[in-house]
Amino acid sequence: MKSFKIALAQFSPHIGNIDANAQKMIEQALEAKKQNADLIIFPELSVIGYPSEDLLLRPALAKRIDKAFKQLAEVKDIVMVFGFVHLTEEGQRYNSAAVMKDGQVLGIYNKHNLPNYGVFDEKRYFNEGHQHLVFEYLGHKFGVLICEDIWSINTVKQVAQLNVDSIVILNASPYEVGKPQHRVQTLTELSKQFNVNLIYVNQVGGQDDLIFDGSSFIINHDSSLALKAPSFKEALYFTDFNPEDKKFNVADPSPNLDAIAEIYQGLVMATRDYVQRSGFPGVILGLSGGIDSALTLAIAVDALGPDKVQAVMMPYTYTAQISVEDASEQARRMGVTFGIAEIHNIVNSFMQTLYPFFGNSPADATEENLQARARGTLLMGLSNKFGNLVLSTGNKSELAVGYCTLYGDMVGGFAVLKDVYKTIVFELAKYRNSLSDTPVIPERVITRPPSAELRPDQKDQDSLPAYDILDAILYAYIEEDQSQADIIAKGFDKAVVEKVIRLVDRNEYKRRQGAIGPRISSRAFSRERRYPIVNGWRPDDI
Amino acid sequence: MKSFKIALAQFSPHIGNIDANAQKMIEQALEAKKQNADLIIFPELSVIGYPSEDLLLRPALAKRIDKAFKQLAEVKDIVMVFGFVHLTEEGQRYNSAAVMKDGQVLGIYNKHNLPNYGVFDEKRYFNEGHQHLVFEYLGHKFGVLICEDIWSINTVKQVAQLNVDSIVILNASPYEVGKPQHRVQTLTELSKQFNVNLIYVNQVGGQDDLIFDGSSFIINHDSSLALKAPSFKEALYFTDFNPEDKKFNVADPSPNLDAIAEIYQGLVMATRDYVQRSGFPGVILGLSGGIDSALTLAIAVDALGPDKVQAVMMPYTYTAQISVEDASEQARRMGVTFGIAEIHNIVNSFMQTLYPFFGNSPADATEENLQARARGTLLMGLSNKFGNLVLSTGNKSELAVGYCTLYGDMVGGFAVLKDVYKTIVFELAKYRNSLSDTPVIPERVITRPPSAELRPDQKDQDSLPAYDILDAILYAYIEEDQSQADIIAKGFDKAVVEKVIRLVDRNEYKRRQGAIGPRISSRAFSRERRYPIVNGWRPDDI
Repeated sequence: MKSFKIALAQFSPHIGNIDANAQKMIEQALEAKKQNADLIIFPELSVIGYPSEDLLLRPALAKRIDKAFKQLAEVKDIVMVFGFVHLTEEGQRYNSAAVMKDGQVLGIYNKHNLPNYGVFDEKRYFNEGHQHLVFEYLGHKFGVLICEDIWSINTVKQVAQLNVDSIVILNASPYEVGKPQHRVQTLTELSKQFNVNLIYVNQVGGQDDLIFDGSSFIINHDSSLALKAPSFKEALYFTDFNPEDKKFNVADPSPNLDAIAEIYQGLVMATRDYVQRSGFPGVILGLSGGIDSALTLAIAVDALGPDKVQAVMMPYTYTAQISVEDASEQARRMGVTFGIAEIHNIVNSFMQTLYPFFGNSPADATEENLQARARGTLLMGLSNKFGNLVLSTGNKSELAVGYCTLYGDMVGGFAVLKDVYKTIVFELAKYRNSLSDTPVIPERVITRPPSAELRPDQKDQDSLPAYDILDAILYAYIEEDQSQADIIAKGFDKAVVEKVIRLVDRNEYKRRQGAIGPRISSRAFSRERRYPIVNGWRPDDI
Repeated sequence: MKSFKIALAQFSPHIGNIDANAQKMIEQALEAKKQNADLIIFPELSVIGYPSEDLLLRPALAKRIDKAFKQLAEVKDIVMVFGFVHLTEEGQRYNSAAVMKDGQVLGIYNKHNLPNYGVFDEKRYFNEGHQHLVFEYLGHKFGVLICEDIWSINTVKQVAQLNVDSIVILNASPYEVGKPQHRVQTLTELSKQFNVNLIYVNQVGGQDDLIFDGSSFIINHDSSLALKAPSFKEALYFTDFNPEDKKFNVADPSPNLDAIAEIYQGLVMATRDYVQRSGFPGVILGLSGGIDSALTLAIAVDALGPDKVQAVMMPYTYTAQISVEDASEQARRMGVTFGIAEIHNIVNSFMQTLYPFFGNSPADATEENLQARARGTLLMGLSNKFGNLVLSTGNKSELAVGYCTLYGDMVGGFAVLKDVYKTIVFELAKYRNSLSDTPVIPERVITRPPSAELRPDQKDQDSLPAYDILDAILYAYIEEDQSQADIIAKGFDKAVVEKVIRLVDRNEYKRRQGAIGPRISSRAFSRERRYPIVNGWRPDDI
């Protein structure tokens, strides 16, 4: 067994852009060679990116994959292990890894375990593999697994029993809070159990509602953490293998982030990738003086820079003066373009036009929604005219119970806080303020009671339970799938629980028309929680 | 072998409402008994309804299914075959059929073939069955299959080889144009090949974007069509089995509908079911004087009755006088509430508010979108105030290329024509007019050139190719998955094809935020065509 240097390509693919991905993989392989690496490992399906959804069904896929292979085959003197879609002549489609050297394919591994739960739909696209692959290079025996395979103890056992020194694992493992640490823990156990080095390479980057955090790592067979790459950063990471103790050299790991810092960085990356890869020159958002839009603004500026962010305040009769002050102050502190557009005339023109229909019917949520929709239409007008993407600023607690206006504050192409409960919004705002000497979010935005300011002296807590209670109920119902009876049994007020669950169930139609937003939880709305809109399931029926 | 009477329950479940479904099944079984039936067959998963999506993952499911079984067990003196979710103690979940008589479960069949393509996600929820079930009653041997099983020749062969006289097939087979006839043709071939009677019972009713057409039937082993139930109608259908020639008595089949009549009836049922099962008192829609809203109005009235439909015309400077005349005239002919709300003041108030931002920048789509959004907000205001659901009126051709305004004409909870190409919209309008002596849609609405009327003298064909060409290109790209090169090779203009495909690809974000609408094609947007929004797949890259 010889010493060698391995490169982990924590790679951010452009979904579906096979040509560009292959080019970037070649550049990274050449860079790795320049730094004397003997092998370079790319993530799962690196050639097309994950998840490519129904692009995987397009007839031209085979030709494009072939072309990528021909391009990659030009790279010499380094072993490349990369993910691709393996289409066989018999019409089967596999989620596969290729081992390539000097233009020769040394072996192909077809993923055994196809996740088809949560955010995953791999059985829609792929056939299951049944063979294992071991390749030897520089006297070192490598096994290969892909993502979900590592969570099947049987699959890991099968390859470990083939006397491999190391297993390389190609991943496109989506982020959720705490997941980077969880992966390291689980694989540490496996390295012990099977006495094998584990090389875990993960995709990085935002793709629609999914965040891939990277956080690649190597665990030695003695459970030492040889390498731990930072989260949310695309780069190459290198380690040398030491044949004497059959381990990879141990380097200082990139430090674990606490949950709030981790989420913040994930949201920043997701926002940047969505905006840039959709080709928008910048973003625009409505600043209300409240904490959700304040946090969204901070994330947008951290993602794109202040010159690419435009903020607009759209006050009405019920907007407090301190809201305007705080919004202006934050915009100033963050250095973004800021404008004010009063909506009185617009709301009045709607009210006058609707008067013949409404007559003297008492005011209700209708009039509040008109304010929200006037604002939404203004933002969309500015977006249409100047090309900036509208960021939606609502949080998960609001979306869960429908405390938001469809076509009003819900307008936008990307909802940065869509999967962030309100209680976490507060934590994130405080975290962001802790990063600079002068807090970017005025303190009062964080401390004043949340209000939609859609009627006089309105507070969120007039209609909703306190956010710590609301979020605890929502978490139990959504993330933990607990029943209404279970949640009441935990000690929450019966009427409150019933109301919250009824609201969650009834507002599926609203969420279905909302913008996508980055997933940070273990049960995000959208592709992870697939509920019918017409839904006769009643929470109180046993 | 004896004679017996069989009842086919073409059943419309309320998705997720296990209690109500079980009650209705009991009522139907009692009714069948009253009419001297010996057996009654319900559709696939009748107890919970199809598709119940992630409701199938709720922990309380087992208790609710148990309760339904206990209730169904009270029915005596008739054999019931029904669909349910079979949860085992080992934690497996099957899509199953139970055979029950006098409270005893005579047998359970677990579906073998789980579709996980197109609109189907069954591998997300179910395990595969591997056993067959044959039950004997009145000297007659029955096999049991569930939906996708019948499309697997191996599975059909296995059960046919068990010497069964008839196979009952429980289905929740979604409608698409021509599907009812296609099923009969395919099963006729199978009945011949395996010399067996086939009893096909299908779910009926609209569920979100899916239409279940019913169209249940019985094919005898000699390929005679013993029974063919009408499409889109919930009812019990009966046939007697004649032991002498081992066939079911042949009755006049319900006539085949032509494609346009079939689509029309499907849209009517889907609209009725969505509105009623969502609990709305009625619907409201914007009438423009154009054909899409005219057809949507006709469908709404046929679905719900004129007293539950409100139409509003919202003219602006560019609205032709004939548009107002035609819209008023149609509303009068159909007997619906009709109002007119001019949007000049609203559009002006938006323009004035935006002037400080826009300055003298030239008018573009922004100003057109303001008109559409003023209308959308008015409709939502009326919906919020009076509780009627907004019907969205856009068609598939528009949605495909993004020729529609997000939060403008796209507002609404149900988009009746979402899966209907513009060329089919014309056919449907003519069809509806043919049903009454006085056409309900004024002739001019059908004959004048389509226009969004968002700028002076605008015609759809100023920005888009003629609809017959547009729809042909869209069909090839969407339904047939053809590449850009293939479509150009068919003889379409290169620049036109490139433009259309670019528009389809770029407008995924718009479609994602659109209302759901009933599927009638073989490739509807939404759950059947899952494309990433950030998408680097380029049509011109080989």
